[in-house]
Amino acid sequence: MTFQVQIKVMPLKDLLDPQGKAVLGGLHNLGMSGVQDVRVGKHISLQIEAANEAAAREIAENASKQLLANAVMEFYEIEFIQA
Amino acid sequence: MTFQVQIKVMPLKDLLDPQGKAVLGGLHNLGMSGVQDVRVGKHISLQIEAANEAAAREIAENASKQLLANAVMEFYEIEFIQA
Repeated sequence: MTFQVQIKVMPLKDLLDPQGKAVLGGLHNLGMSGVQDVRVGKHISLQIEAANEAAAREIAENASKQLLANAVMEFYEIEFIQA
Repeated sequence: MTFQVQIKVMPLKDLLDPQGKAVLGGLHNLGMSGVQDVRVGKHISLQIEAANEAAAREIAENASKQLLANAVMEFYEIEFIQA
């Protein structure tokens, strides 16, 4: 079975996010003063072939831990989309 | 009112995504052969102060069009999280 998986990788809440600060400044310069906080991370969409959802979830967890997210600076969230 | 908004910006489906291809190669090298397709984009989380959800949505749309996404190469999706 093929599973469609979305992984969100964001900078940890306690850390500064310079890219988010830059975007926030840019939005304020464009006149959008209602925007108060911006954080920028990565969004990875994967297609995983696995026997069942548990196996696919394990692959997604391993991929996040070993390659996609740096646990020192980032956290990740895995979301399955029903195919 | 403060709204928590998530914006996903991904490369268009028809375009090559070299970063995704690199991640796919890395995952295969780590032994995760079940992963078949990877696309990498941006995930932006915003906090927007606005009178109502429609106003917040308009700010998010404008932010996406004017700054966050390049419509030639990327598409975006806006998602509201109930505060």
